[in-house]
Amino acid sequence: MKKGLFIVFEGPEGAGKTTVIKDIESVFKNTNIEYIFTREPGGISISEQIRKIILNKENTEMDGRTEALLYAAARRQHLVEKVIPSLEAGKVVICDRFIFSSLAYQGYARGLGMEQVMNINNFAIEEYMPDLTLLFDLDPRVGLRRIHSNDEREINRLDLESIEFHEKVVEAYHILANKYNESTIIIDASKSLEEVKDQVINSIMSFLEKKGYI
Amino acid sequence: MKKGLFIVFEGPEGAGKTTVIKDIESVFKNTNIEYIFTREPGGISISEQIRKIILNKENTEMDGRTEALLYAAARRQHLVEKVIPSLEAGKVVICDRFIFSSLAYQGYARGLGMEQVMNINNFAIEEYMPDLTLLFDLDPRVGLRRIHSNDEREINRLDLESIEFHEKVVEAYHILANKYNESTIIIDASKSLEEVKDQVINSIMSFLEKKGYI
Repeated sequence: MKKGLFIVFEGPEGAGKTTVIKDIESVFKNTNIEYIFTREPGGISISEQIRKIILNKENTEMDGRTEALLYAAARRQHLVEKVIPSLEAGKVVICDRFIFSSLAYQGYARGLGMEQVMNINNFAIEEYMPDLTLLFDLDPRVGLRRIHSNDEREINRLDLESIEFHEKVVEAYHILANKYNESTIIIDASKSLEEVKDQVINSIMSFLEKKGYI
Repeated sequence: MKKGLFIVFEGPEGAGKTTVIKDIESVFKNTNIEYIFTREPGGISISEQIRKIILNKENTEMDGRTEALLYAAARRQHLVEKVIPSLEAGKVVICDRFIFSSLAYQGYARGLGMEQVMNINNFAIEEYMPDLTLLFDLDPRVGLRRIHSNDEREINRLDLESIEFHEKVVEAYHILANKYNESTIIIDASKSLEEVKDQVINSIMSFLEKKGYI
């Protein structure tokens, strides 16, 4: 039985998701809301082992479909071992990225097909679609500029993809926000960090209230 | 462009697939047929890495769906790196086990659902369904007796499953043989090894002839 609430943060690189999550944690600490923050593979051993294969630089031969299946496998195990037990314990689970990322990056930007990537993810997550997705919306050029001017953040493989790739990712997010409009809230991530944080906290708190959680 | 032929051996444990494959190899050597014999993960590095996670005895928490996704991922990479290039080179590819095994073991006997496991496998293999599947049909009790009396063969995790599990596997194989009857030939594996070998060689040679391959 699922009693908690499953909230997911999505958006392109440099949209501020990870930074805002840290700030929200300090807000949550002052309430009696029981919560966990997580991000796949999230310390789950099997998911970490799978992620290692995906990120191994020697695996240059990896096919896009192999990668998508491995992401789905790592997602399944993280869901089973971490997300579902927390939801069953009545907690609010806040997860940094989930299926929209696979659909946008692998399905749309890499061209595997959103519907096809959705199929394997449906197998992985069964009924555990997020109750709420907060989509950080941002011009990918702005996101990439932010990343490149942030000395603390290590630039990863995805950051180095072409601007066209990142534009496709944002395009896909818009398609998904439209398709899942009843469970998606768009956050204007072009605003200042303070304003973004306020939008996110207001959205989450209204949602928890609406669901009778607070 | 696919020019070769893709032939798969399927059947329960102890049906003699691996033994017969070795004998067939010696028959093929005396012809001018270009062929490869393979069996996932087949020496493909990424597939071997994935298989290691599946077989790692410390991964006791592995969920059935995670396992099915990992098998599909390993299958994809083996297909892309080994099967497809051989087919494109016009070779006969003989593969010991393929999707019927996933459908029978994970989909049916473990109860994940054959259709659902087929969905993720369709994503993995795209149009590369076997041109011919040879299904070694055998009462699972006979198969298990053969395994336990064979000192050379190490008994694996699957061999130790209950007889009910192995009966379900055989039941699933019958369902699949019926569904894919145009591309499946049933081999009576209860016969002597010599007779089984003859059935298999005749089936393969007739098929190669029918396809204008010899």
